[in-house]
Amino acid sequence: MSRANNPQLKSWVEVKPGSDFPIQNLPFGMFMTSQMTSRAGVAIGEYILDLAVVAEAGLLDGIKFDKKDLSRPHLNWFIGSGKKVTTAVRERISDLLNADNAELRDNAGLRAKALVKQSDAQMLMPVRIPNYTDFYSSKEHATNVGIMFRDPANALLPNWKHLPVGYHGRASSIVISGTPIHRPKGQTKADDAAAPSFGPCRLLDFELEMAFITGKSTELGESISTAEAEDYIFGMVLFNDWSARDIQKWEYVPLGPFLAKNFGSTISPWIVTLDALEPFRVETPVQEPEVLPYLKFEGKKNFDIYLEVEIVPENGKSKTVSQSNFKYMYWNMSQQLAHHTVNGCNIEVGDLYASGTISGPTPDSYGSMLEISWQGKKPIQMTDGTERKFILDYDTVVMRGWCEKDGVRIGFGECSGKILPAL
Amino acid sequence: MSRANNPQLKSWVEVKPGSDFPIQNLPFGMFMTSQMTSRAGVAIGEYILDLAVVAEAGLLDGIKFDKKDLSRPHLNWFIGSGKKVTTAVRERISDLLNADNAELRDNAGLRAKALVKQSDAQMLMPVRIPNYTDFYSSKEHATNVGIMFRDPANALLPNWKHLPVGYHGRASSIVISGTPIHRPKGQTKADDAAAPSFGPCRLLDFELEMAFITGKSTELGESISTAEAEDYIFGMVLFNDWSARDIQKWEYVPLGPFLAKNFGSTISPWIVTLDALEPFRVETPVQEPEVLPYLKFEGKKNFDIYLEVEIVPENGKSKTVSQSNFKYMYWNMSQQLAHHTVNGCNIEVGDLYASGTISGPTPDSYGSMLEISWQGKKPIQMTDGTERKFILDYDTVVMRGWCEKDGVRIGFGECSGKILPAL
Repeated sequence: MSRANNPQLKSWVEVKPGSDFPIQNLPFGMFMTSQMTSRAGVAIGEYILDLAVVAEAGLLDGIKFDKKDLSRPHLNWFIGSGKKVTTAVRERISDLLNADNAELRDNAGLRAKALVKQSDAQMLMPVRIPNYTDFYSSKEHATNVGIMFRDPANALLPNWKHLPVGYHGRASSIVISGTPIHRPKGQTKADDAAAPSFGPCRLLDFELEMAFITGKSTELGESISTAEAEDYIFGMVLFNDWSARDIQKWEYVPLGPFLAKNFGSTISPWIVTLDALEPFRVETPVQEPEVLPYLKFEGKKNFDIYLEVEIVPENGKSKTVSQSNFKYMYWNMSQQLAHHTVNGCNIEVGDLYASGTISGPTPDSYGSMLEISWQGKKPIQMTDGTERKFILDYDTVVMRGWCEKDGVRIGFGECSGKILPAL
Repeated sequence: MSRANNPQLKSWVEVKPGSDFPIQNLPFGMFMTSQMTSRAGVAIGEYILDLAVVAEAGLLDGIKFDKKDLSRPHLNWFIGSGKKVTTAVRERISDLLNADNAELRDNAGLRAKALVKQSDAQMLMPVRIPNYTDFYSSKEHATNVGIMFRDPANALLPNWKHLPVGYHGRASSIVISGTPIHRPKGQTKADDAAAPSFGPCRLLDFELEMAFITGKSTELGESISTAEAEDYIFGMVLFNDWSARDIQKWEYVPLGPFLAKNFGSTISPWIVTLDALEPFRVETPVQEPEVLPYLKFEGKKNFDIYLEVEIVPENGKSKTVSQSNFKYMYWNMSQQLAHHTVNGCNIEVGDLYASGTISGPTPDSYGSMLEISWQGKKPIQMTDGTERKFILDYDTVVMRGWCEKDGVRIGFGECSGKILPAL
């Protein structure tokens, strides 16, 4: 385990109890301020450490990469330098922020330039996403959907336990946390209607997901084994795969969801590295029947990440509607990447691979309103006395996620989006 | 109509009869040679006019855009300057290549630098493709698939005539004509097998498609009307959506094709502009039942583009296996783009939107081996005495397309790819 993960470490930057960003985390993101254009940063407590400033001051000199990559529009160049570089930078930052290290701590001028309050910064898309794939890897979610829409006796389709089902999504409409999303318009058809009609979506939903971002590319024709997969995964973010259920129902046979999904997806701004998640590995659930050889794997490939979803009505009290965990995933990320590339499909730096809705075994851990309200039959009581079957205009959906162990909390920050009325 | 489309125009560059690239075409592409890195070019006869050289010589001075955009890795910057610019450049090139124009014709030094033999050049991907969508807009194709795999009495699904069905594809694995593709490996399951098995695809197919490339972006939340759509379409290419039918059958329910498609797709290198296709507009087939208002359109939105597919066995004689036409498309490109954005999905410069397999009404016009051989039940007799149900290793599939009228042929060149054995 990296020395940067030591639970005993303390930073000279104040980190309040319950913060997502202690010195053991050090996630990477892109930000700007009123004074500065886009640059790479690392979150620490309520601050961002400006990596471009740190590099310019010579504090990353021992690590061989192009320092200009820290002030490009996205992290693609930096993370594309490879894990040796990004891991070394994280460890060096850990040293620089260590309570015992005077280099930056006692250099008041540099410190003032290098530390930016998160409240003074605007977070930007951390990567340009060349390709986006969404998996469907939670057994509980796939089962719930199967019970509702197909056959309760055969809820999982025949292929589901043999391969991590996935499909391609729209990269252009993935936005950073805080970006409002307009309710989409589209075609829907009531079961008893003769023809479809057009109008604003009436069954707008969130999907609680996580996503991993790749930091290494392959050539067309190459495959990645489950043993190699984590070398390609730079880190993870929270992901809200906004979904228009009524549009989806009418459009999705036979080629899959399209306009029901591509009006917007939201990611959290900080990429938490696999390095930081190392202490939180857990076993993958038992896979039965046995998977084909290319999907077999060794070791702990799941991660124990607590997840929750809150709905915040306009001027109203928030309500936590889901408490789930990434560890429930039936298919792990290494299997997803091995499957995705087994046919020779090439991957690129910055690609985003989402998990699919992460539902747990109990109704309070379901990852979408479709499941929580069971198609609207069991509305949620909000704190302000109103009900929710799906998401209303001006509701904000906030997702959070964190790992916790030995007094250390490795958090993902927020993945938040407000729904505005249809245009 | 643009003066560049005048059928009477002749160029001082020799254009042999039957060439795809007379002076009335002037398609844009990216190329390199042993002497030069990537740059933009225009095809004329058997030559490429090097636009970077032409611009450097001051010959495009009247047109306001950044001339450096002609020597970037892709055309995205250039076509993103807007149709006013790209149309003006095409018209200016038409003047420069006109038999009566001495500017370039009589400047032997410049001419030698500006004209590169196509046989001396390597064509490159014309655009970086941020997003790729594949439609399913040929009624004949969707009907054939429905008859084979579902219910002959209800071959078209209920949504098919109400909306242009589409889905997201993989941008990373789209390659330029001439790039060999390895037969993909993957999971397949025979109907009578208890479990899936793993191995090379046994039912490898082509799909005869065309695709349009956008030259203008929108913001998230914006929609494009059918009346505005062509302003966003820069031009078109041929597109081979290679498909692994056995992998597809096992994986595609419920979220659509994935590994069956993303191991490779091939495009032709020259983007033929909508400007050049203007004389070949035809009516869209009658759409019954009536479409919803946002899908209504005025004018001739289809194009009369003859298409053909040839299979060339290794060391064997080629055989034309399909003769189709883009005019058969039930849904036109303007409707596709209006539908794609009606929910606010944003588009980017360089996006590629493919038509779906283009099948005509008769078996010799079907656009895939799946249909031509009717699931392998009617093998094609090759000229060398062998049979084809699907594509064999070392077969090359060549697609060609052109418009013809008043003695002018506007062609797309070749979209060619050879299948190599599985790795």
